[in-house]
Amino acid sequence: MNRQPSIAIVGATGAVGREMLDVLEGRKFNHGELNLLASSRSAGQTLRYRGEPHTIKELTKDSFKGIDLALFSAGGSISKVFCPIAAAAGAVVVDNSSAFRMDPKVPLVVPEVNPEALNAMKGKAGIIANPNCSTIIMIVAVNPLRAAFGVKRIAASTYQAVSGAGAAAMDELATQARAVLAGGKAEAKIFHEQCAFNVFSHNSAMDPTTGRNVEEQKMVDESRKMWNDKTVRITATCVRVPVMRAHAEALNLTLAKSATERQVREVLAKAPGVAIVDDRAKNLFPTSLKASGRDEVLVGRIRVDESQDFEIRGGEVWATGFDLFVAGDQLRKGAALNAVQIAELMRD
Amino acid sequence: MNRQPSIAIVGATGAVGREMLDVLEGRKFNHGELNLLASSRSAGQTLRYRGEPHTIKELTKDSFKGIDLALFSAGGSISKVFCPIAAAAGAVVVDNSSAFRMDPKVPLVVPEVNPEALNAMKGKAGIIANPNCSTIIMIVAVNPLRAAFGVKRIAASTYQAVSGAGAAAMDELATQARAVLAGGKAEAKIFHEQCAFNVFSHNSAMDPTTGRNVEEQKMVDESRKMWNDKTVRITATCVRVPVMRAHAEALNLTLAKSATERQVREVLAKAPGVAIVDDRAKNLFPTSLKASGRDEVLVGRIRVDESQDFEIRGGEVWATGFDLFVAGDQLRKGAALNAVQIAELMRD
Repeated sequence: MNRQPSIAIVGATGAVGREMLDVLEGRKFNHGELNLLASSRSAGQTLRYRGEPHTIKELTKDSFKGIDLALFSAGGSISKVFCPIAAAAGAVVVDNSSAFRMDPKVPLVVPEVNPEALNAMKGKAGIIANPNCSTIIMIVAVNPLRAAFGVKRIAASTYQAVSGAGAAAMDELATQARAVLAGGKAEAKIFHEQCAFNVFSHNSAMDPTTGRNVEEQKMVDESRKMWNDKTVRITATCVRVPVMRAHAEALNLTLAKSATERQVREVLAKAPGVAIVDDRAKNLFPTSLKASGRDEVLVGRIRVDESQDFEIRGGEVWATGFDLFVAGDQLRKGAALNAVQIAELMRD
Repeated sequence: MNRQPSIAIVGATGAVGREMLDVLEGRKFNHGELNLLASSRSAGQTLRYRGEPHTIKELTKDSFKGIDLALFSAGGSISKVFCPIAAAAGAVVVDNSSAFRMDPKVPLVVPEVNPEALNAMKGKAGIIANPNCSTIIMIVAVNPLRAAFGVKRIAASTYQAVSGAGAAAMDELATQARAVLAGGKAEAKIFHEQCAFNVFSHNSAMDPTTGRNVEEQKMVDESRKMWNDKTVRITATCVRVPVMRAHAEALNLTLAKSATERQVREVLAKAPGVAIVDDRAKNLFPTSLKASGRDEVLVGRIRVDESQDFEIRGGEVWATGFDLFVAGDQLRKGAALNAVQIAELMRD
């Protein structure tokens, strides 16, 4: 990549696209020309970036001539068609969709977890996949513990914001909430269930045989790919909650080696991309709102899970079972920030 | 208890108290005199019951003369003082607070789970404890599986409605949601965190050493007491979500004996107090709203947890690990309905 790469953002008007602009601006990412691309419907609109209006252009096969870095967040079907075109035109492509994540030739990367997966790509054009948001938020919190103690099993329950389904889903939550508060009926268009004042199983498609939905399967498959470990055991229940933009997750862990709670805290305190929020006396822990707009994954409720084996040695509890409650901004670390961090690694 | 018992409802104006009246009316519970009791602040107000206005009286030490059945839901400190007075006056007392739940002399009862715990009390005055709402919703779903296959471990993550903190908390959710939707700030009075459009660790007090909050400890201790089994392993992460009145729970189970998914479904289909809501093709499962106003605990997302040991025998997966997603109305089965069911058993 050049010193001053030219950038294309595909899906610039979406919730993640707008967040990408905010992250590039906030991180003072050096770049040359910036092309904001979207469907013909959005072409001609403007978005402000670094104080200047930028006009949205229509995405076409010719959009990537001279582009060094292409950040995609326009859905899997757009990515399937246009990521290979951008890569063939010479761009480093970071794709936020699920289209290429499980392709064995495509690196799937969280910079805090497996930056080495990018090594073979350095200096070359090609596609890099950004993982699923729930997976990113889980793996940033669990990876340091895996490095220190090993991880045999993760049982995750998610509390996922509606923003994972895009800006229209955030509008739907607000519209439904207004209707319900006014004594009216909520109309569901984006989701199959009312999202305001309700909690429901994730809206992704479900495997009729296993009973796992696509979101849950991603948490299993993508973690295994990034860790290059097919033995790690993961089960997840993915649930939508009436929250605008950050995902929370209750994580029940089984470590390979026993550890004390103090050791677990020490590891997490030094972990990149993690901020501990854990005040038992004041009952202050990660929440969706505290994570919103933050770059770090917030980790709290750090405690021994006494339902798994433990022993007392040297006056301390040594356990393999630990419970955590984490929250991360799915539009930011769960999508836009992780993509820009990948771009930064490719540039360095 | 007489054929036509006289009833006192303590805390009649609260969220659970009002629900008790609704349940008594809906179940055509035969009774004589009805005394609605509350603090002096509420005395003189009226509540409609069976089409008639009933005037709230102030709770005093003399409120229980001639009362056969006293249903308490006015908080632990009121229960500690007045439940013994009501029992001494000759009443069967069903207490919805946590004051007596772990008292070894007090039966803790979910009628679908351990009705036999009432046997020694039949025909006598005394205190019976109604379990915590999250515990009731979990145990109604898990008990049939325990009876059929044994249960070694439960890892629960809850999605708890604000109604567990009373009618004022429901007002707070509505008030905060209106403020946020109008672009203003949410003011938190009942909870320590904003509840509108947010998810936060349960507001109950926390043990500074174990890091478990009181709600989580109740799920462990009360389940063990009802099952009379100190070996069952339970861990819980209790979380508030911006929902008015039903609790959902993601339950990760380890059975003692392996079973097929078909067997698990057959057991749950026949279980008292359980309704299966599980349509993989249409992605329809238990939600907070579907459970609201329902008597049954809704059970769905019934599936093998492949992160635990399993084997394939006779073309079927035999597993000890199962995941469920359940939802129950915490004001109804989690409180008022369970109390009235206990009263019905005591009358029979």
